[in-house]
Order: sequence, then C-alpha cells, then structure tokens
Amino acid sequence: MNWLDAVKWDRDGFVPAIAQEVGSNDVLMFAFMNREALAKTAELGRAVYWSRSRHRLWFKGEESGFVQQVHEIRLDCDKDVVLLKVTQLGHEPSIGCHTGRHSCFYRKLIGAEWKSVEPVLTNPDSIYK
Amino acid sequence: MNWLDAVKWDRDGFVPAIAQEVGSNDVLMFAFMNREALAKTAELGRAVYWSRSRHRLWFKGEESGFVQQVHEIRLDCDKDVVLLKVTQLGHEPSIGCHTGRHSCFYRKLIGAEWKSVEPVLTNPDSIYK
Repeated sequence: MNWLDAVKWDRDGFVPAIAQEVGSNDVLMFAFMNREALAKTAELGRAVYWSRSRHRLWFKGEESGFVQQVHEIRLDCDKDVVLLKVTQLGHEPSIGCHTGRHSCFYRKLIGAEWKSVEPVLTNPDSIYK
Repeated sequence: MNWLDAVKWDRDGFVPAIAQEVGSNDVLMFAFMNREALAKTAELGRAVYWSRSRHRLWFKGEESGFVQQVHEIRLDCDKDVVLLKVTQLGHEPSIGCHTGRHSCFYRKLIGAEWKSVEPVLTNPDSIYK
C-alpha cells in the first residue's frame, strides 16, 4: 500500500497540516495539502502546501525565501492530520508567517479581545516584492 | 464586535483547533470547534471541541478524565485556525490521545511507511469503560 493512500483525505482531497519548529517546538503555521503537495514535501524535504486561494501548489518560501526544511512527517491517530517538524529558513529569528512574524498564531484572547502579542520581525513589504 | 465573530468559521461552521502542551510545547491533538465549543472553552478554561462523529459538543476528558486545562487561546493570521495552550490532566506522563499515547501524532513517515514511534502509556480499554 502506498503511504499516501493511508492518509484520509477530506471530501475536497485535502489534509490539514501543522508546521512545528524543531528546537523551539513552536507551532509556526497551519495550511492544507493535497496528495501532490504531500508527495512533493516528502520528495524534496521542504514544505509544499496547497494554496486554496491561488488554487495551486505552494512551495513555501517560493516568494519570500522563507523555505521550511522538513525533518519529519507525522500522521495522527485518525490519519487525517499531518504534522511537519521543520526548520524555518531565511531569517534569524525565524519568520513563519506572511505578516513577518515568527508564528501565525500571534493573536491571543485577552478578556474578550484578540490582541497581537508577537512582534513583526520584518516588514512584509520587504518580503514580498 | 464579539470576539467570536472575528473567527472565520468554515462553510460548516467549524474552525480547526490545535492543542499544544504548555512546557513541552508538544502538539497533542487536533480537532474542530464550532462557535459554542469555542465559547465554552473560553468560559470554562477547559478544551471543548465539536465531535464530528458524534455530532455533539465534546468536553475533552468527559469519559477518560483526561481534561485539557486551557491557559491561552490563540488565533492565526487568517483568523481561521485556533491554537490552545493546554495542560493535559489525568495522567503522568500526559495522555492526549484516545489510543493511550502522549500525542495523536505518533506515526512517523520512515522511508515509504508510517511507523508508530510513541509508546502506549495506558491501555485505552482502561480509559474508556
């Protein structure tokens, strides 16, 4: 059995994927993969997602240079979620979010408000030209 | 604006939620929430998900006793994924997975095979009676 067939793809052919940074263990981002994206990720050792807004494969870092080197690919108990253990390349400290922040999860619920609690490390205008 | 209205719920009214353990920073599990589940999570300070198989609110730990105490609720850049920072209660070392393992992400891609690389800490038959 092909390892890709073990994955339970959703009705649209996607699987959710979480990118976690090796070392810090921080959760950097979340995206979706289709079968081709997961196959490419394993083949290349770099994170490849499916861009649902652009309807095409998204080689993470293709524009920003912020490539995610993939050390491990994990699958959960229900076989319908993928976890990548990555090194986030291209900037020190690492930038995983298109807003120029370390992690996409920079909004924290404080009282009844979402507050941004992580700094912008690089102006996103300088990342995407 | 109600903080729950800021969340971009999917077409079925759900948002993906990642549970990450405070301290280890390990990703324990992934599930979905509807609006009521997220509201209850914030209100009670414990993880409440939507069970898509049972079509009802799932108070994590309601059967197993393995409650997730919630310290922080985070929202990502696109406002469509939630990250919980939790303490996984009920067992030492902590069990976040219904298989009796620490994390649901216990399958690792090695070569072209998914291999279980995390031990079962407690027989699930003794968790769910």
